[in-house]
Amino acid sequence: MALIRTVFQDELDGVSQTLQDLSEMVIASIGTATEAILNADLKLAEEVIKSDDHIDAIQHELDARIIEIIARQQPVATDLRALVTALRISADLERMGDMAHHVAKTARLRHPNQAIPAPATEIISHMGTVAKNMAQKMGQVISTRSTDLSLEVEKDDDQMDELHRRLITTIIEMKWESGVEGAIDLTLVGRYFERYADHAVSVARRINFLVTGSYR
Amino acid sequence: MALIRTVFQDELDGVSQTLQDLSEMVIASIGTATEAILNADLKLAEEVIKSDDHIDAIQHELDARIIEIIARQQPVATDLRALVTALRISADLERMGDMAHHVAKTARLRHPNQAIPAPATEIISHMGTVAKNMAQKMGQVISTRSTDLSLEVEKDDDQMDELHRRLITTIIEMKWESGVEGAIDLTLVGRYFERYADHAVSVARRINFLVTGSYR
Repeated sequence: MALIRTVFQDELDGVSQTLQDLSEMVIASIGTATEAILNADLKLAEEVIKSDDHIDAIQHELDARIIEIIARQQPVATDLRALVTALRISADLERMGDMAHHVAKTARLRHPNQAIPAPATEIISHMGTVAKNMAQKMGQVISTRSTDLSLEVEKDDDQMDELHRRLITTIIEMKWESGVEGAIDLTLVGRYFERYADHAVSVARRINFLVTGSYR
Repeated sequence: MALIRTVFQDELDGVSQTLQDLSEMVIASIGTATEAILNADLKLAEEVIKSDDHIDAIQHELDARIIEIIARQQPVATDLRALVTALRISADLERMGDMAHHVAKTARLRHPNQAIPAPATEIISHMGTVAKNMAQKMGQVISTRSTDLSLEVEKDDDQMDELHRRLITTIIEMKWESGVEGAIDLTLVGRYFERYADHAVSVARRINFLVTGSYR
């Protein structure tokens, strides 16, 4: 019995480790995607697009593994909740990867032109920094289960919302004399960063709920 | 033992019934949201916004119930896969409700003005019809597990993609002399319909995978 518990514990640790690995990957993705779109860097954009397949594959394997663990170990109470939470977090992380992928694809679509016009570069750069920072804290929440850090991720999302409002105002105030295609790109890119941040908050909340048993 | 199986079967049927109920609700939501935004109808918009809370509450209850069934019945193989799939489908349905909610909020934000300018009303109306049609088929896939219908949902998504492309072209070709605010709204509303359809495809695929054991 003690041996079985140990195997199970190892399996839970393995799931947690893969979630941390996925976090690292989506943190890197949003950083690289931000750089790619700010500098119209095709090579970096391709890197993000390629790595998204890798993220999806790892997520897919993780989900299959979690279901297999539930079937074989038949966990109850806390352990079952932790495994179901892991399934949900892996879905959030996969979507964060998708958002970085969408940003990178916009950069690739407009290359060699800039997808981000000069008046918006500072805001997009700032959104990239906030997104990465939130995802880094989210990664620490996954590994440490810190409820304080979880709360910080949620607070940081206010910064993202504020940047998003500023971006919309900037799009409205800009002159789009050669057409609104750029306004469409910018609207969608803004949405991708905002959604990326929403998923980081979602992950932090899920861990918080697992630890405290209640939603804030 | 026979009795326990029967209780369990009832519970699985109950989960399936709630998924069908949620489907009905998100089908109604997108229909009403489309009407609200096309006619700048504040009353209908408020209706959708209000019903989203109800959808979220039902989804929340369903998820808790599924986890409780897994913990108590300790299902393996097919039954466990069906319950995990139900968890994922409930998340898709909840997001479909959110998309309808976003459309309705855009209508409310611009009321008493029209959020959708005349040159785009026909496309948005068409997107609403395709979205609702896809969701209706998705609902039937949930209740019948038909793999043929599941394939149809996927094919219908090509129509949505085509409409989305036409919408972007329309936005680019329109004159935005009094500002691009309307272009931003239209870009986001188009994205909401497209995402709504994506989630319908996702649900159809999940059921297909459950039935056939393989992804198309």
